[in-house]
Amino acid sequence: MPGVQRYWEDYEVGAVFELGSKTMTKDEIVEFAQKFDPQPFHIDEAAAKKSFFGGLIASGWHTCSVCMRLMVDNYLSPGTSLGSPGLDEVRWLKPVYAGDTITARIVIVDKKPSRSKPNIGSVFNRYEVHNQKGELVMTMKGIGIIARRNAS
Amino acid sequence: MPGVQRYWEDYEVGAVFELGSKTMTKDEIVEFAQKFDPQPFHIDEAAAKKSFFGGLIASGWHTCSVCMRLMVDNYLSPGTSLGSPGLDEVRWLKPVYAGDTITARIVIVDKKPSRSKPNIGSVFNRYEVHNQKGELVMTMKGIGIIARRNAS
Repeated sequence: MPGVQRYWEDYEVGAVFELGSKTMTKDEIVEFAQKFDPQPFHIDEAAAKKSFFGGLIASGWHTCSVCMRLMVDNYLSPGTSLGSPGLDEVRWLKPVYAGDTITARIVIVDKKPSRSKPNIGSVFNRYEVHNQKGELVMTMKGIGIIARRNAS
Repeated sequence: MPGVQRYWEDYEVGAVFELGSKTMTKDEIVEFAQKFDPQPFHIDEAAAKKSFFGGLIASGWHTCSVCMRLMVDNYLSPGTSLGSPGLDEVRWLKPVYAGDTITARIVIVDKKPSRSKPNIGSVFNRYEVHNQKGELVMTMKGIGIIARRNAS
C-alpha cells in the first residue's frame, strides 16, 4: 500500500502482497524493445507472427521492469527501502503478448537481520506474475534491504 | 559481432565475447526510473545525495536492460537466437552512478542440446559488468535458446 511506512520488523514470513496489474500495450512493448532489446519478435509485428512465438511479445526485461514499477507503487516504503543486492531464479515461463494484462504478487519467504549492521535487515521475496488467463508467466526471487525501526 | 550468423554448434565453452560499453547519463537514468523504478535515489539528485548511496544511481533493471542492448548489438545472431527461459544469480555488486561507463562481457560456461527438440540447444552464459574504474558492478548467469545448424 503506498504511503505506508513499513520497517524490516513489519514484514512477516508468509505474508502476500498484491502489486496490481498492468496491460502491456503493443506501443509500450515496441518502445521498450527499440531501446533495450531490439530483437524481431519484440519490435516487428510481422516478423513476430512468423517467429517461434507467433506474435509480438514483451522483452523479459520489460516485464521485470513493469513489475518493479508495480512494486514501487504498491509495496515498497519510501525511506525504508534501501535497494537490492540481487535476484535469483528469474523464470520467463510463458511469453507476454501485446495486449496481455499482467498481475503481480509478492510472497515473503524469509527475513534475516544483518549480522554486521544493526540498522538494516534483508527480506526475501518470491514474485509471481500471471496473465489475464490465469497462466503463470514469470516467477523470480528477490532480496530487499530494509531499514529497521529501532534504528531510525 | 553483429551480422555474424552463429548457431548452437558455434558456441564454445570458455569463449569470451566483449559486448562493448555504454555511459549511463543522468538523463537516461532518470528517464528509465521515472517509468519503471521511481525511488528517490534513482530520480532525485538531491535526495540521492542524502541517501545511503551518496549520489544518483541507475536502477538495477536499467543496468540489466542496457546489457541486453549491448548483447543484441554485439553478440546475438538474429534468426538463431530464440529467447531465454530465465536468469540466475543476478548480483548488483556496486551502484552504477550517473556518468559511469559500464563495459559488459559474456563468458560461455556450458551448453546442452535439447533432449526433446533436435533443432535447438541451450547456451549458458555468465555476464560480467565493470565500471570505468575496473570495479565489477554486476554479474549474472543467463540461458539462451539457440537454433542448431543442421536443423535450419
